[in-house]
Amino acid sequence: MVTEVLDVRHVALVAQYADMLQIGARNMQNFSLLREAGESGKPVLLKRGLAATVDEWLMAAEYILLTGNDRVVLCERGVRSFDSATRNLLDLTVIPLLRQITHLPVIVDPSHGTGIARLVGPMALAAIAAGADGLLVEVHPEPRAAASDGAQSLRPTEFAELMRNLPEVARAAGRSTRSRTFLSV
Amino acid sequence: MVTEVLDVRHVALVAQYADMLQIGARNMQNFSLLREAGESGKPVLLKRGLAATVDEWLMAAEYILLTGNDRVVLCERGVRSFDSATRNLLDLTVIPLLRQITHLPVIVDPSHGTGIARLVGPMALAAIAAGADGLLVEVHPEPRAAASDGAQSLRPTEFAELMRNLPEVARAAGRSTRSRTFLSV
Amino acid sequence: MVTEVLDVRHVALVAQYADMLQIGARNMQNFSLLREAGESGKPVLLKRGLAATVDEWLMAAEYILLTGNDRVVLCERGVRSFDSATRNLLDLTVIPLLRQITHLPVIVDPSHGTGIARLVGPMALAAIAAGADGLLVEVHPEPRAAASDGAQSLRPTEFAELMRNLPEVARAAGRSTRSRTFLSV
Amino acid sequence: MVTEVLDVRHVALVAQYADMLQIGARNMQNFSLLREAGESGKPVLLKRGLAATVDEWLMAAEYILLTGNDRVVLCERGVRSFDSATRNLLDLTVIPLLRQITHLPVIVDPSHGTGIARLVGPMALAAIAAGADGLLVEVHPEPRAAASDGAQSLRPTEFAELMRNLPEVARAAGRSTRSRTFLSV
Repeated sequence: MVTEVLDVRHVALVAQYADMLQIGARNMQNFSLLREAGESGKPVLLKRGLAATVDEWLMAAEYILLTGNDRVVLCERGVRSFDSATRNLLDLTVIPLLRQITHLPVIVDPSHGTGIARLVGPMALAAIAAGADGLLVEVHPEPRAAASDGAQSLRPTEFAELMRNLPEVARAAGRSTRSRTFLSV
Repeated sequence: MVTEVLDVRHVALVAQYADMLQIGARNMQNFSLLREAGESGKPVLLKRGLAATVDEWLMAAEYILLTGNDRVVLCERGVRSFDSATRNLLDLTVIPLLRQITHLPVIVDPSHGTGIARLVGPMALAAIAAGADGLLVEVHPEPRAAASDGAQSLRPTEFAELMRNLPEVARAAGRSTRSRTFLSV
Repeated sequence: MVTEVLDVRHVALVAQYADMLQIGARNMQNFSLLREAGESGKPVLLKRGLAATVDEWLMAAEYILLTGNDRVVLCERGVRSFDSATRNLLDLTVIPLLRQITHLPVIVDPSHGTGIARLVGPMALAAIAAGADGLLVEVHPEPRAAASDGAQSLRPTEFAELMRNLPEVARAAGRSTRSRTFLSV
Repeated sequence: MVTEVLDVRHVALVAQYADMLQIGARNMQNFSLLREAGESGKPVLLKRGLAATVDEWLMAAEYILLTGNDRVVLCERGVRSFDSATRNLLDLTVIPLLRQITHLPVIVDPSHGTGIARLVGPMALAAIAAGADGLLVEVHPEPRAAASDGAQSLRPTEFAELMRNLPEVARAAGRSTRSRTFLSV
């Protein structure tokens, strides 16, 4: 289970139950939270800030790494742009770029990255083809009834179809695949 | 042969020799040039402007379509961003987005889109996985000696390797492939 | 009279009647048009492109200057941003910045820069306080009935009030003032 | 004395000594910190996030106001842009815009907003002309020796000169002036 932490005072409690702590985009430069999450010893999922450069993102990761916790995963989730056609602008180029300058794994969140359910599948395939190590995909049994982010959530059947198509793209892009699905709350 | 036209007064001459006319990103809203290119009857490659929304891009295409010339191809080549880590920010989400709102084919230029040769291959595969209809890739026999754009040009051997990997990704993403390479000058 | 030219083939005709030629933001990098405007010998108003850096803007001006025509005026009219609260993001910092690196006069268009009539007055005063050499302000006798840009147009009485307040701000900012109003069509 | 707080656990301590708490741009959406700062009862200076829309900025202010603490001051300090000519893009249009939609005072930080000492003076005058209620200006006795932000710091003599010119611009823009200078650490 991956759980977002928003407050330094909650880290210890959340770390008792979650398998992985998530730092959200709005907290990417909340340095107290980064340190506290690092010191929990749990793996940390570090989302890219809304207008963070690749350099700033890696420097934020350093706050976690400096605690001696090297289990950091970077997550691209789209940056702010001038075009409101999509919720954010998903920047897949960071995948091969980061591979050349860091050993940290990079995953992609096409749900927040696009904000539109019908675009999630193609962008998930594109992320894998570009070399992503994993995906963070929102799924909801009844997207229209979701309390939040319904417009970008896949139905379980749509998710299952995506998971069927994905391994072949991964293989074609020269990646070995091992499907492990985690719950994020 | 695809040739960029920069001046309305050159369209007729260029159209005598080129198979396709290219409108560059800086001329996407040069409406006289769009009309003149349309009236040539030649296929037109319309690059997205540096800060053009998807709506503005499609409206620029309308200037060509209104001349009765419906052979327009849209080309994503990256937009301007706050991060100088890459030359532009390649926006692959427009591929599935455009597929839902227009019948026009969409191709991707990962060379200008990234500006860095080592990123071109992965982003070319990602573009095809996202559903792109084609690619515009810069190749140079000796990139370091190129008069311009050397940093983003593939060597012929690198291009050949990319072309070997591409069909499998296309098939995995459910696309039929037919490789036809055009010269762009 | 300041008149926008959109097509190289119209420059000679427009130059017969206009006192000054205007190059619009969408044509800032239409290099044929820049050269042709320069060769007309008329003063040229060069608007900043929607996502043009200061360097690119000055390099565009060079195309005009290279024809031997040094009567070029730069016009800041706002750049593209992620916030749709205003039509564009008016970048007044370019005024003192340009003063340090070029001798060309700099004027400001707070009408396009904000897109909202009630913001035009304060931003006009701010532009003058920052050192602008002039303003380009849209005025319409009946803004709601305007064919275009009504939302950003001042009524004649509002314009008159602005012109009354302006000289004092200019003096306070250490500028001498000489009010000359030109018609732009 | 205005002091930035970076960690919810420091708010109580800082509030014992500071006259005003500052929430930095990187913490604008650190909602725990906003609430804690609000509950301290101290006035809060809320800097705009690096890519925050006006709506998001006002919603961040609501987190403070909801604690019953209505002494909130908004501070524009520039947003992220595609042009590296200045450190940030100072958005002065928010001054008259915010005046129409909120009663909260708005001040401007031209030091972070431009990043270049020679631009601070003109932009400070422009901010006041646009209606700003105050300024946050960095001053250092020896800018070249400053541990950080030296490039954007005024010398005391430059600051004194700015303070001499400011009242006249304020009066010209129809503002009454009362100069009170606070120390920010």
